Amino acid sequence: MAILHHYAFCPHSRFVRLTMGEMGLEPEISEERPWAREEGFLRMNPSGTTPVFLENDIAIPGAGVIAEYLDETRGLGMNGRRLLPGDPAGRVEVRRLLEWFNSKFYDEVTGYLVTEKIIKRFSGEAPDAGAIRAARSNMRYHLRYIGFLCADRNWLAGDHMTYADLAAAAHLSCADYLGDVPWDEDELAKEWYARVKSRPAFRSLLADRVPGMTPPSHYADLDF
Amino acid sequence: MAILHHYAFCPHSRFVRLTMGEMGLEPEISEERPWAREEGFLRMNPSGTTPVFLENDIAIPGAGVIAEYLDETRGLGMNGRRLLPGDPAGRVEVRRLLEWFNSKFYDEVTGYLVTEKIIKRFSGEAPDAGAIRAARSNMRYHLRYIGFLCADRNWLAGDHMTYADLAAAAHLSCADYLGDVPWDEDELAKEWYARVKSRPAFRSLLADRVPGMTPPSHYADLDF
Repeated sequence: MAILHHYAFCPHSRFVRLTMGEMGLEPEISEERPWAREEGFLRMNPSGTTPVFLENDIAIPGAGVIAEYLDETRGLGMNGRRLLPGDPAGRVEVRRLLEWFNSKFYDEVTGYLVTEKIIKRFSGEAPDAGAIRAARSNMRYHLRYIGFLCADRNWLAGDHMTYADLAAAAHLSCADYLGDVPWDEDELAKEWYARVKSRPAFRSLLADRVPGMTPPSHYADLDF
Repeated sequence: MAILHHYAFCPHSRFVRLTMGEMGLEPEISEERPWAREEGFLRMNPSGTTPVFLENDIAIPGAGVIAEYLDETRGLGMNGRRLLPGDPAGRVEVRRLLEWFNSKFYDEVTGYLVTEKIIKRFSGEAPDAGAIRAARSNMRYHLRYIGFLCADRNWLAGDHMTYADLAAAAHLSCADYLGDVPWDEDELAKEWYARVKSRPAFRSLLADRVPGMTPPSHYADLDF
């Protein structure tokens, strides 16, 4: 039995849930609290971060490693809807954007927002207002970059939906839950996000809640 | 003609140089100063970071994306010495460690050391002594982790040298230039590094110098 160890508001976990939804995979789901650094979880993934996908006794840690693993083990069975394209230039562009959102966007925006506004509620530390301000400021240029990509592409990496769209949307969905995406500043980015958000794979993400924190009314509205 | 855009003391660039050396590739080399944020370089890689490998009009940015690209385009021609193994579990372990060194070790150790001690010499900012202290403290547990892996493996990811060894050694070589690797604290890690350092691909790295900064005498000594 395959198990996905995740945290509901970890953007990297959300990316893997979206990917598995698109691939029609329904692993058992185990919720982790990465800030608790529990010993069993650390043995499975010494870096202590979510997500970890466990299959055939292999613990596969991290969004990027899981994406490559799923493409290699499931990608060719997707009847041409492969989330990592087959041609070298297409693979470079998808992996470039996957890295952009999972590393750069996370380091500059969603890592701060999720840590300061959600995780610190549970770990008992005081949120750092400066980090939240920096994240909100950085968000604007990332949103413009998404709009820039959408100006002459159907999807972020080209003609088809790929890992790049799922990663960007996964991160944005966490920030959107917190009310920190200024959608009105970029119509193209907003239109693209509405398309990704309406995928069936997105439904379970939009249903998750942080106890005591209500998302803005547009969060789960598929028409914004 | 293929070109590698790199910076001599960027650990991710060093990883790609080692990889290309092991693969027998000799691209044209172009030295970048990533802190200068030059427009031509940003057009090629909007994230502004080194390395970027340019081939057949495709700009391939970042250590991880370049590693996947080279494995897919050159890996099978290495007569079994493939740096990313063919079996799923082996691929997961190499990619896990590649991510460990290129992201976690960089974020916790070499990013601080290179930025504070080298890049700030050129950008004119004052080094942050706290960041350097944090990096030195974090170095110790990473060195122990390398020793732990070497205790029952020939190389970091298993029986053969892989991307994992080249990434770890690339990062360590930058810290070692700065005298910030306490080799005496882990004999197994030291013995493993001596083996990687003696590869012919390492020679050109060991010859690079930061103007005005002399490395410790053991830096380029293949026997320590």
